[in-house]
Amino acid sequence: MIQRLETGPRMSQAVIHGNTIYLAGQVADDTTQDVTGQTRQILAAIDKLLSDCGTDKARILSATIYLADIATFSQMNAAWDAWVPAGHAPARATVEAKLAAPKYKVEIQVIAAR
Amino acid sequence: MIQRLETGPRMSQAVIHGNTIYLAGQVADDTTQDVTGQTRQILAAIDKLLSDCGTDKARILSATIYLADIATFSQMNAAWDAWVPAGHAPARATVEAKLAAPKYKVEIQVIAAR
Amino acid sequence: MIQRLETGPRMSQAVIHGNTIYLAGQVADDTTQDVTGQTRQILAAIDKLLSDCGTDKARILSATIYLADIATFSQMNAAWDAWVPAGHAPARATVEAKLAAPKYKVEIQVIAAR
Repeated sequence: MIQRLETGPRMSQAVIHGNTIYLAGQVADDTTQDVTGQTRQILAAIDKLLSDCGTDKARILSATIYLADIATFSQMNAAWDAWVPAGHAPARATVEAKLAAPKYKVEIQVIAAR
Repeated sequence: MIQRLETGPRMSQAVIHGNTIYLAGQVADDTTQDVTGQTRQILAAIDKLLSDCGTDKARILSATIYLADIATFSQMNAAWDAWVPAGHAPARATVEAKLAAPKYKVEIQVIAAR
Repeated sequence: MIQRLETGPRMSQAVIHGNTIYLAGQVADDTTQDVTGQTRQILAAIDKLLSDCGTDKARILSATIYLADIATFSQMNAAWDAWVPAGHAPARATVEAKLAAPKYKVEIQVIAAR
């Protein structure tokens, strides 16, 4: 009834429970990029994980977005707004929080359905 | 199986998945008010959204509360404690985080059942 | 269909909805301890609550970890990594946030299955 994907000693990248999927907070791989670029990478990582779970971005229920600097809100939204499928936007909260390392400018955590 | 309420290009204010409801992080409309006043407005907005989803505050499962200044913890609780129905308090976490604009002093994100 | 454990006027420590359990953000009782010690106390509190809900740490779906100082990331992980059961790690996000009082160095909020 619980399936875990990309499971390590510290966390799983995705956990499926019944029809609900919990993803780990995603950060960018290439942290030389700016907030828009990091957000694009994160959204691509989310697409990949959701696909591995048998679902997609049209079925995201909730997203929590952490920005290292809230002044980059519109830079994050530039990537986010282009990515969200019309009519399928999730519930969302965005707040400022320092992340695991200063190179990370954005982290996004989502809950989705399959 | 997924229903979205007040859906825009960026987010939905409420997303219903089976018997679980995810609300967007709610902030106050009248940001001239203090933390207690902003919290009251937010809780009224949550009441309205839950009603639109066919449920109410006695069925909230979890709440995450973000305060722009954690020193306003008791001012937020003054509104919160008066609003929570006896015997039906949700799980809750409260942390400090800067919000989308400095005028917002409180943001509350809830998961509820219907 | 909703069961609440350790319910007070402000929050419940655990809320059970169907097969999903939402715990309140847990903090340490003995705040004279360092981040590793506070994390150990929190994880013991989570074990106890999950047990009271008829489940255990092998069934945690998602964890959100708030650190008052993100520089203590590895100190928190020292306790976390030792506690997570092999093959059952949850989805996880860790961010910096000031907590309800300066004495609290860590707060952990989990969603679990039973």
